[in-house]
Amino acid sequence: MKRREFLKRAGLGGAAGATAGAATLAAPARAASGNMHWRMATSGVGNDAPFFDAAERIARRVAELTEGRFRIRVSAAGEIADGARLLDAVRSGEAESGLVSLRALAGREPAFALAAGVPFGLDPRHRSAWMTSGGGREALEPLFAEYGVVRLPAGSTGAQIGTWSRKEIRGVDDLEGMRLATGGLAGRVYARLGAEPQALAGSEVLAALEQGRIDAVEWLSPYDDERRGLAKAARYYYYPGLWEAGPELSLIADRGNWDGLPKAYQAALESACSDAAAHIGARYDAENPQALRRLLAEGVELRSLPQPVLEAAEAAANRLYAELGPVNPRWMRVYPQWAAFRDLHHPWARLAQYGLDSFAYTRTAKT
Amino acid sequence: MKRREFLKRAGLGGAAGATAGAATLAAPARAASGNMHWRMATSGVGNDAPFFDAAERIARRVAELTEGRFRIRVSAAGEIADGARLLDAVRSGEAESGLVSLRALAGREPAFALAAGVPFGLDPRHRSAWMTSGGGREALEPLFAEYGVVRLPAGSTGAQIGTWSRKEIRGVDDLEGMRLATGGLAGRVYARLGAEPQALAGSEVLAALEQGRIDAVEWLSPYDDERRGLAKAARYYYYPGLWEAGPELSLIADRGNWDGLPKAYQAALESACSDAAAHIGARYDAENPQALRRLLAEGVELRSLPQPVLEAAEAAANRLYAELGPVNPRWMRVYPQWAAFRDLHHPWARLAQYGLDSFAYTRTAKT
Repeated sequence: MKRREFLKRAGLGGAAGATAGAATLAAPARAASGNMHWRMATSGVGNDAPFFDAAERIARRVAELTEGRFRIRVSAAGEIADGARLLDAVRSGEAESGLVSLRALAGREPAFALAAGVPFGLDPRHRSAWMTSGGGREALEPLFAEYGVVRLPAGSTGAQIGTWSRKEIRGVDDLEGMRLATGGLAGRVYARLGAEPQALAGSEVLAALEQGRIDAVEWLSPYDDERRGLAKAARYYYYPGLWEAGPELSLIADRGNWDGLPKAYQAALESACSDAAAHIGARYDAENPQALRRLLAEGVELRSLPQPVLEAAEAAANRLYAELGPVNPRWMRVYPQWAAFRDLHHPWARLAQYGLDSFAYTRTAKT
Repeated sequence: MKRREFLKRAGLGGAAGATAGAATLAAPARAASGNMHWRMATSGVGNDAPFFDAAERIARRVAELTEGRFRIRVSAAGEIADGARLLDAVRSGEAESGLVSLRALAGREPAFALAAGVPFGLDPRHRSAWMTSGGGREALEPLFAEYGVVRLPAGSTGAQIGTWSRKEIRGVDDLEGMRLATGGLAGRVYARLGAEPQALAGSEVLAALEQGRIDAVEWLSPYDDERRGLAKAARYYYYPGLWEAGPELSLIADRGNWDGLPKAYQAALESACSDAAAHIGARYDAENPQALRRLLAEGVELRSLPQPVLEAAEAAANRLYAELGPVNPRWMRVYPQWAAFRDLHHPWARLAQYGLDSFAYTRTAKT
């Protein structure tokens, strides 16, 4: 019955069934939608990182899917606008679309960060489940509508490394007065632990760390960090990257422009984003272990963040989330639903995937 | 520079830059590729499961992306061919494509299972990294070429539940003589532990379990298992699902038919598969926790497989993999590269994503 429904929906019932017996070019080509050009603003650390390489992958795939009729011109990182300003650039029409981690918008509206990654938040897989099938998209929809944009998920790096630090972190006390470059809600959590979070542009981070103007930075993961040369400026490499639990890119488009796209071009953009997401995640997963091995060979000291630091950070994060509610109706509209999903989801994830990984990782470690 | 390269490749340099300032419909539409019809054979447990619902999702998206010019007619599970026979149906032209877990082909050629999931194998995320960016696609390419098919990844359920059993499994001895429905390489591992693996069609499993003709079955995960009614026939629900570490669907297409597709239609099929993969994984992740909760409320006894059983199964799996090498050059061409990827990858995964999950799950469990 479901199949019949589908065939009906797709206009493949009856007569089409008769022609379906062979690949055929018999019927005349249907009229195709016309040419369109869009711009895509990008933000952050440069198009050479796999995370931002997503923009070019998306544009290329959209062109392939539409046989060159829908073309997207990708601007270099920061060329049109950076960080939180990118949303404005899309709304004002400087670009029809933009690729950004919505974490960059957390200063303006913390609820955006729930789509991108928050400290101790859902990890990329679970965030995807929440957004796609767990009510997250519906919960966030009014927020995106209010800002006049459409949002498509465009890939994650997976969990990252927590912190590059010039100073050893032996306990919570070591965070006191630490000047740490970070963003999103992570900065607010760090501040509650006594640190002094710094908002630096990606291009400034390495020099600031080398010159000792900052003590530490929360950056990406071994593959990007290695190419950025961060190991030259900081000795300690702390994991896990709890500050966003694996960041996610979003493609945002002005709603008016989106509504003006033929359905096939909307589908092309969505599918190109899915395709890019699959490739980006896989590339980080494949590259990171090798990069980490090279970093360790260079003398980087890999350490786990002490349990008391994790616990203090988690407590600070939960207090922050609780305090945001009464003063922020947008947060209140999303966060409780998000937290309920996490609390229902974690016990299952723990026994299924994690249960299996627990066994596998212990065994690999022994061999 | 990379951006310039891209613009050049996509034909967007120079003149196109001048028109990119606005979404425009000015230029005449380019000629679109013509109409094509394909069939897609499906296999297994029925189109009502999210895992197989992938077929309809792929067909629908391909039609959307090509504005109805490339249409794929999905056949109900088993209508054209089931399991290992599906590959033959695609090669003989009964269908241009098929959606199948390549695990079903492990009896004919064990190396196929490395693309789908093997006992104690890479989990879906790591398998995807291996296939996409870790050399897996290249390692498997000669195998697919030999069989005359192209293979696209089309989604995974994530780690599943290990076994529904009418008998308690307290140790390896309890597997002696156990009649257990399973497939792929899992059956060969079970046999080495003294069990009597049974190859049953999906439609026969429930009745066989209810009538006591089998003692246990390795099935899917809570969401599918609940709808199948397996809880009525077996009391014990053992995790984790080590038998394939999260199975993966593949879309296979006859290489000649694939080569005959316009590039845009190849891209549409690839992207539609990525899109389906993202949705299917998310849907299982969102549905499973709720289904598990309902199963537990019905009285199902959820148990972890005892550590000695896991260890014995892992040892048996590793012996099997080692023994396959000398007698099977196809296995030898892929397995060592696969194992090297796993051994490099696990230590990173363990400290990054797993390190974070470890903390998060422990904390959620306490609240």
